[in-house]
Amino acid sequence: MLHFDSDYMEGAHPLIMERLMQTNLEQTVGYGMDPYTRRAVALIQDAVGSHFADVHFLVGGTQSNATVIGALLRGSDAVIAADTAHINVHEAGAIEATGHKVLSLPATEGKLSASKIENYLENFFKDDTWEHMSIPAMVYISFPTEYGTIYSRAELESISNVCKRYSLKLFVDGARLGYGLAARGNDVSLKDLFRCCDAFYIGGTKVGTMFGEAVVLKNKSLAPNFFSYIKRSGALLAKGRLLGLQFETMFTDGLYLECGRNGVERAMELREAFESKGYKPAIDSPTNQQFFELPNSLIDNLSKDVTFEFWGPRGKDKSIVRFVTSWATPAESIEKLKALLNNF
Amino acid sequence: MLHFDSDYMEGAHPLIMERLMQTNLEQTVGYGMDPYTRRAVALIQDAVGSHFADVHFLVGGTQSNATVIGALLRGSDAVIAADTAHINVHEAGAIEATGHKVLSLPATEGKLSASKIENYLENFFKDDTWEHMSIPAMVYISFPTEYGTIYSRAELESISNVCKRYSLKLFVDGARLGYGLAARGNDVSLKDLFRCCDAFYIGGTKVGTMFGEAVVLKNKSLAPNFFSYIKRSGALLAKGRLLGLQFETMFTDGLYLECGRNGVERAMELREAFESKGYKPAIDSPTNQQFFELPNSLIDNLSKDVTFEFWGPRGKDKSIVRFVTSWATPAESIEKLKALLNNF
Amino acid sequence: MLHFDSDYMEGAHPLIMERLMQTNLEQTVGYGMDPYTRRAVALIQDAVGSHFADVHFLVGGTQSNATVIGALLRGSDAVIAADTAHINVHEAGAIEATGHKVLSLPATEGKLSASKIENYLENFFKDDTWEHMSIPAMVYISFPTEYGTIYSRAELESISNVCKRYSLKLFVDGARLGYGLAARGNDVSLKDLFRCCDAFYIGGTKVGTMFGEAVVLKNKSLAPNFFSYIKRSGALLAKGRLLGLQFETMFTDGLYLECGRNGVERAMELREAFESKGYKPAIDSPTNQQFFELPNSLIDNLSKDVTFEFWGPRGKDKSIVRFVTSWATPAESIEKLKALLNNF
Amino acid sequence: MLHFDSDYMEGAHPLIMERLMQTNLEQTVGYGMDPYTRRAVALIQDAVGSHFADVHFLVGGTQSNATVIGALLRGSDAVIAADTAHINVHEAGAIEATGHKVLSLPATEGKLSASKIENYLENFFKDDTWEHMSIPAMVYISFPTEYGTIYSRAELESISNVCKRYSLKLFVDGARLGYGLAARGNDVSLKDLFRCCDAFYIGGTKVGTMFGEAVVLKNKSLAPNFFSYIKRSGALLAKGRLLGLQFETMFTDGLYLECGRNGVERAMELREAFESKGYKPAIDSPTNQQFFELPNSLIDNLSKDVTFEFWGPRGKDKSIVRFVTSWATPAESIEKLKALLNNF
Repeated sequence: MLHFDSDYMEGAHPLIMERLMQTNLEQTVGYGMDPYTRRAVALIQDAVGSHFADVHFLVGGTQSNATVIGALLRGSDAVIAADTAHINVHEAGAIEATGHKVLSLPATEGKLSASKIENYLENFFKDDTWEHMSIPAMVYISFPTEYGTIYSRAELESISNVCKRYSLKLFVDGARLGYGLAARGNDVSLKDLFRCCDAFYIGGTKVGTMFGEAVVLKNKSLAPNFFSYIKRSGALLAKGRLLGLQFETMFTDGLYLECGRNGVERAMELREAFESKGYKPAIDSPTNQQFFELPNSLIDNLSKDVTFEFWGPRGKDKSIVRFVTSWATPAESIEKLKALLNNF
Repeated sequence: MLHFDSDYMEGAHPLIMERLMQTNLEQTVGYGMDPYTRRAVALIQDAVGSHFADVHFLVGGTQSNATVIGALLRGSDAVIAADTAHINVHEAGAIEATGHKVLSLPATEGKLSASKIENYLENFFKDDTWEHMSIPAMVYISFPTEYGTIYSRAELESISNVCKRYSLKLFVDGARLGYGLAARGNDVSLKDLFRCCDAFYIGGTKVGTMFGEAVVLKNKSLAPNFFSYIKRSGALLAKGRLLGLQFETMFTDGLYLECGRNGVERAMELREAFESKGYKPAIDSPTNQQFFELPNSLIDNLSKDVTFEFWGPRGKDKSIVRFVTSWATPAESIEKLKALLNNF
Repeated sequence: MLHFDSDYMEGAHPLIMERLMQTNLEQTVGYGMDPYTRRAVALIQDAVGSHFADVHFLVGGTQSNATVIGALLRGSDAVIAADTAHINVHEAGAIEATGHKVLSLPATEGKLSASKIENYLENFFKDDTWEHMSIPAMVYISFPTEYGTIYSRAELESISNVCKRYSLKLFVDGARLGYGLAARGNDVSLKDLFRCCDAFYIGGTKVGTMFGEAVVLKNKSLAPNFFSYIKRSGALLAKGRLLGLQFETMFTDGLYLECGRNGVERAMELREAFESKGYKPAIDSPTNQQFFELPNSLIDNLSKDVTFEFWGPRGKDKSIVRFVTSWATPAESIEKLKALLNNF
Repeated sequence: MLHFDSDYMEGAHPLIMERLMQTNLEQTVGYGMDPYTRRAVALIQDAVGSHFADVHFLVGGTQSNATVIGALLRGSDAVIAADTAHINVHEAGAIEATGHKVLSLPATEGKLSASKIENYLENFFKDDTWEHMSIPAMVYISFPTEYGTIYSRAELESISNVCKRYSLKLFVDGARLGYGLAARGNDVSLKDLFRCCDAFYIGGTKVGTMFGEAVVLKNKSLAPNFFSYIKRSGALLAKGRLLGLQFETMFTDGLYLECGRNGVERAMELREAFESKGYKPAIDSPTNQQFFELPNSLIDNLSKDVTFEFWGPRGKDKSIVRFVTSWATPAESIEKLKALLNNF
């Protein structure tokens, strides 16, 4: 059976496992005060190009989103997001649990545009009753998005500029950041993200760590006592060094990008496999999530040997499906998929 | 250097690491729907003696406390806890973040008694203004407590009975449960806990897993849609099988109890080492946390070679300190400590 | 100057003021334990046809919405509402402040339909990932809606049936209920509302009281300790008798309906005044809010002598405006408006 | 029957009622944008001595406490209060509902002292684990306290200085402020309060208005978008002018102080009445709440003709009781009480 359901089906990159084994019985203090975490922070500060970067390691994506958004918003503040955004759809109300509304705008293939955001803000503040509404104070975007698409540097800068003009914070959900950085045609770097955003996170769970996300805040004043806020959010790992060690490994010798690259390369091969059989991608995604509109008969046949996600019907005879590759997908899995496709 | 600071200084028990390595590149579905998690649930249901037990795996202790308490309380409900309780002191307001008040009662060596709780409830509901107050709807106790002490089965049953009489839920924080179960003189079993409580958790992080706590609810109706509530709390691990696998290992061939036993045995040896030099424990703890009142001169001398926690001064010349052993503490560490003590 | 901005521009109906004056220096106990409140509760129980009805008096509309929704929802529960619903747009995130998501569906002239709701629920629970989402547990509708429209009894029953089928609660925001009950063609009674809903409120602020809304819950078990929850929400009026007295007056000799009727009659006259000049209503509203698409030149001219609300442009030359009448609007105000319209 | 249960048993001062009647059918815009509210704001800015004062009118006390505290605190911030404080005991968890912990310190007759607060803070930040705790960010005191006592200007300044030294906000609950300002021996003015505090409120409900509290923030930057936050808290009155008009009346020709003075004078007469019969006050309160330790036989006898509050037994034969006077208590009520006392 071949599995393309998601990018969190395996454990961790072998180098991570090796380091966890090597250090397993070492004794360190907890809560991220250990030397591994300190080195990981320094490596990430180097990577984003600023020693003011306030770096914290959390366990998971929804947790990181809720903790950052909850810490950065106040009072009646709301966060703007794509209607397809993870925080708007698939976090069971984690943002609302912090008391803040998600204001959703219609997205195009998972993306928001600067002009759409600006238009919304302009109309919002023109409305005489705006003070009776949840006031937009942050924009949340995903890079890559939930549909595999990415923002260009110019698009990111435009959104950042709109945010600055209207005094909104910009937060980028980087659960799959590695696959975005490694995407063909991508011109956004970690330094660009740091420059354009108030906060973002570097996803580990889906890009080769066993678990863990590296949250990067522009500076320490954005969220005073953020450490305590992480604790209050139930998001502080006792054995913090597990996170530090993993991200230290990831940011040594380019492992993080290597993990991203494997996912993207396999995804491109997978896409070519479908295209060569005449199936066009439903979305032009340069990252590790690929969407196709396939005949239901093909879906049924493939399903005997391959798992993937069903995203919804398209008329009577076709459906949209999602295939996901990852840091762990071996080239031979694509070869096997190709062979299967050739059978039908 | 010898370290007795806490029970979360190492990684995980070697058997856990072995299993993580063996299964690392297996592909499973996420969020605890995998076979490892299903087996772990079944093993824990067996251990607590009920197939109605609703078992969920979370990552950490504060997270488990806030998620369970938030899910079980409603409206203006409050939770009664010892003034020294972890939820009252060391969770940065995680319970209050769910909108509920912690009503603290003065504890004796970390423990509450049934009569103290009953007395409080009796007075509470006698007060004409009780409906203007946060209404106690749950009792939270720790087993073992933050001071290493444990409840006898009779004490636990008495507290459980008071809770039933006043329609309060009983929740037991078992972050260090393994050390309580393995304590000399302990007569409380997992089955007793399940019988007496509405909810409790079996701590992994401090008792041999890399991370993870097994939350056990009496039944599924206590917290409808608890899975979604875990997600909303940012407490749902994507690679859920990591938790399942660890608890499956822990509940196979008695590993959980073995981990508890090592911590307790080392703690008893450590206690004897101090006692044999004339230093009495400050608290009569049968578990892996040991408290001593030591001369400051001894503390200074020991600190050159040993780390442990300072808990506060006692007069000018003495202080209370805490030594913690764990599943990982080797017998030789105690031997080395003895040797050091003999030097002074 | 004539004012048609809103239905909360005056104080209270003269009979209410008279009763407030008469009783001003009487001494009663607080928090709604007084005889006025008890009588008001009994009168409303009679009006809704059930002595199990759990009646509470709150001060304002947003407060009532947030208090009822917060008390009835749990965990990751969400509330379905029209995209134009007051709770979705104009309450500054008061519902999200209780930790719950508002799931908005596109409305037609302020209304949701049973089939739209059912379709949403059917798709929701078909989605494999529904447990990762905020789970719909309540439907919120307004009667009349924010656009002046009302539901027929058959429509209300259909929505109620969908809610029962999917185990959702139904809550009706009756901030302007009096104008709905008095609307021409309305066939919904207070008894129908009570029968179809789990909770609703009878709006006073906009229908003749100085302030106050009467919240009606189906029974006491829906929200245990609801009194304390009201207190916790900052929504418990110390001098509760002020609310009791006003609603006692309102539900004596049909005053509440009389207030509603005045608003509706003036609104119908106002509508005829515009229609007779050839201006069609933009929405066919049978209640006290009337919407017209008017030429901007007329709007400019009218604005010299009349205040009303601007709702947005329609092309270059026209705009949508809202005129609101109330329990207090005198017939002569409509006559004056007619005279003005005849000038242009 | 004579009533001394509380200071919210009557409606409003006759001058307030007169103004409400006079203006009843005037039409004004809502939400406090009306001229009455604007004049009331200006009068209060004059009274506190600063045109930077950010003045808002809310309906009730618990609502004001929760709204101000919720708006001023962030993240894991906590508020320090006396264990007897209204927010700690009698608000059904309204503060915790905003996600913040109340850190209670033992009070003396309802009061905290600067040194007690300072000592707490010093120890708090000395503790190595302080970042794992709810971090004190505000001090809440009541003036007068729940036991009728008041702070001297020197005491208030000392507390204010401690707050500044540790970067905590100071918030004063003035639900009964008028009785404090009018107390014999009081040397604290509104200007002093404004100077020493970050926020306080001028209680109306208990001091002569029908309802309403005037919240005063030091400046607009303390709580950006506070208007929206009030709305989100369900605390924005639609007919805002009702609040504005009442406080305009209160701050015209010294009515607020006059109301306070009546309550205090009657309280002093009542105290003398008991003292002359040999019953000493249990607390030396200079304001409108008086506490006595009375023989149960006297309590039983008085209860036939007088209502007052029972605060708890003192041994077998005596109890503590509370008598409350108000702006509305007529001199003859005290005369009648005296006559009754002379009978026993």
